[in-house]
Amino acid sequence: MKAVGVIVEYNPFHNGHKFHLDQTKKQSGAEVVIAVMSGNFLQRGEPALVSKWARTEMALNGGADIVFELPYFFATQNADIFATGAVSLLAAVNCHSLCFGSEAGDIHTFRETLDFLNEKNDEFQEKIKEFSSQGVSYPKALSLSFEALSPGKHLLDLSKPNNILGLQYVAAIQQQKFAIQPLTITRKNANYHDQHFASSSIASATSIRKALFSVNGSIEGIHSYLPQTTYDLLHNYKKEYRQFHTWEDYWDLLKYKLLLSSPEELRGIHEVEEGLENRLQHAALKANSFQDFMEQIKTKRYTWTRLQRVSLHILMNVKKAEMTPKKQPEYLRLLGMSAKGREYLRKEKKNLHLPLISKLSSNKQLLELDLRAARLYALGLKSKNEQERLLSLDFKQHPIQL
Amino acid sequence: MKAVGVIVEYNPFHNGHKFHLDQTKKQSGAEVVIAVMSGNFLQRGEPALVSKWARTEMALNGGADIVFELPYFFATQNADIFATGAVSLLAAVNCHSLCFGSEAGDIHTFRETLDFLNEKNDEFQEKIKEFSSQGVSYPKALSLSFEALSPGKHLLDLSKPNNILGLQYVAAIQQQKFAIQPLTITRKNANYHDQHFASSSIASATSIRKALFSVNGSIEGIHSYLPQTTYDLLHNYKKEYRQFHTWEDYWDLLKYKLLLSSPEELRGIHEVEEGLENRLQHAALKANSFQDFMEQIKTKRYTWTRLQRVSLHILMNVKKAEMTPKKQPEYLRLLGMSAKGREYLRKEKKNLHLPLISKLSSNKQLLELDLRAARLYALGLKSKNEQERLLSLDFKQHPIQL
Repeated sequence: MKAVGVIVEYNPFHNGHKFHLDQTKKQSGAEVVIAVMSGNFLQRGEPALVSKWARTEMALNGGADIVFELPYFFATQNADIFATGAVSLLAAVNCHSLCFGSEAGDIHTFRETLDFLNEKNDEFQEKIKEFSSQGVSYPKALSLSFEALSPGKHLLDLSKPNNILGLQYVAAIQQQKFAIQPLTITRKNANYHDQHFASSSIASATSIRKALFSVNGSIEGIHSYLPQTTYDLLHNYKKEYRQFHTWEDYWDLLKYKLLLSSPEELRGIHEVEEGLENRLQHAALKANSFQDFMEQIKTKRYTWTRLQRVSLHILMNVKKAEMTPKKQPEYLRLLGMSAKGREYLRKEKKNLHLPLISKLSSNKQLLELDLRAARLYALGLKSKNEQERLLSLDFKQHPIQL
Repeated sequence: MKAVGVIVEYNPFHNGHKFHLDQTKKQSGAEVVIAVMSGNFLQRGEPALVSKWARTEMALNGGADIVFELPYFFATQNADIFATGAVSLLAAVNCHSLCFGSEAGDIHTFRETLDFLNEKNDEFQEKIKEFSSQGVSYPKALSLSFEALSPGKHLLDLSKPNNILGLQYVAAIQQQKFAIQPLTITRKNANYHDQHFASSSIASATSIRKALFSVNGSIEGIHSYLPQTTYDLLHNYKKEYRQFHTWEDYWDLLKYKLLLSSPEELRGIHEVEEGLENRLQHAALKANSFQDFMEQIKTKRYTWTRLQRVSLHILMNVKKAEMTPKKQPEYLRLLGMSAKGREYLRKEKKNLHLPLISKLSSNKQLLELDLRAARLYALGLKSKNEQERLLSLDFKQHPIQL
């Protein structure tokens, strides 16, 4: 059985994702789609709207056959590390191809750009510094440097977030010499960070979340952008847990952690650079909300995403020593599968390059960070009974079967 | 000017405390009463009902002339360390006497008991172990051992909590050779741990808090046991901060701290003994409230008070290294004073044995633990505006003047 991989967050799964999965099957000719999905916390350093379990159900209903959790270690880091973890996980389960959405939509451009970078990266970085020092924004500096070094050549627009991620995927495959064929599909009608709806059925997850949390926002208001199963699952989640998850739900805990930790302790946290700890503590004393906190600490040097990630690592109590670089996950955490996915895993069982984990009991040590993330995620719920129910899932929940 | 010291928590200040202050002035013949008061967290390891500022106002209105804060370091520890800190603070401000309430009410008995202990302590401890190993409770083992070694002698009943504390005060004076005369007054009509009212005007702070937090509890319901100013201050506190403080208000934070810390980190906390960390984490996963948590972790070995203190140190993030023994506070944190108190301090200014702190700006390092306690205390408030207002007090509030 041929398998194609996708790397996803599904926050939440929407019609654009459905389109991507359908195209992925067509382009790759694979029988099985394997999704590597971030767990409860995402690459931008924020909690997912709903738990990884609900999002796994969305994915399976949308056409994925197997869903593996991308460990916290990789899921909450910059594009380079994120891509390395996700791609090597797909390699460990023997995907023959990987299909990602991008603004460019042409895999040739990715290869050429990568060749260019392999050859001229030093000059490229120099140029970027040069432009940055002139006050040009980082994405803009990227594209200007490109143009300067390869004038007239049709290379990748690296100011687009999905192009950047895609390039990291292709680079990871090349660097680790994986036998994975990269494929790409043009993203339909929606830019990653779009804040407003531009079509009647396809919208970015960002704009969907924005609409959901707007003053008069409701699940009904985003219905047309979601497959029915996503709609139902969001509806049920709200009913079962009484809320969706946002950073504001964790603000009290972050404030506590910042105000009761010593500066030395904060400096021991992953990605907290010297001096930042004072800035964070100072802002925590005054801020009235997470939003307010972020606005106080944001600078040119520290982007919103980077500060959200730092905040998450602080809240998660992730020490620098826990994040020493690694090339691949140590396990395959199976979140769910379809009948076809089950068949694939049965056939491939002996060829998997990492241990498959579907029950937690004996693997607590290995999964330490992911378990901590599951605990933290549950603590964002206001109701204690719901906290306990969600928390227990990580221990009791068998992989979801469609 | 002659000054007499009292060691108090005033949680809240009630008619019994008023009686004690009146008697203290009579017995000692002093012009000035100096109170050493626990800050926002108390000796039993729990938050005070209302902040140290409100309790200082109660104390000044009730007849105290100066209120100093007993630092967190001493205020939240066992009777021995608590007494050492409080007594040495009174010595540093040149109190000529110390007057404490006790069940015994006769200072001679305290002296005799102390002499006995100085002489026969080893045998005494042996006996206590002997009785304890037979399953006898600790207070009971104390009194039985006493009786066994000094049959017929009229010695102190060490099963009474105020006798125990008083004995520690007398011992601290003796050990450090302070020129302080110990005096004692029989506690009126109320045992320390009384849960029910036994008089129409005097009740223990424990029973007053219990009545306040009972199902139909209200400030009105405890009015007759409180001086009018305490009543008004409680009323205003509730209006200003919308709540009183109980452990339940800190349960979410404690749960977070327990679930997101590693066992090694927890073992580094003051008073967490090897093995206890697992028990605490396990209970935190299941407990629905602080009360529930405590009931789950309580054992014969760990008393309620001890576990509350451990929980507080965990929440406060107090490392073992921060609590290496010391004989006396490093500063005099002035919370409030009457006109007479102000006069006393002016006259004694050059004779104080510790630095007097009335503004915080330049003393943050020294007061680190107390500032942390102030921050933590404010985080128990549900409303963010009120959190900020209470937090700012520790930086903006000048000593209260009556």
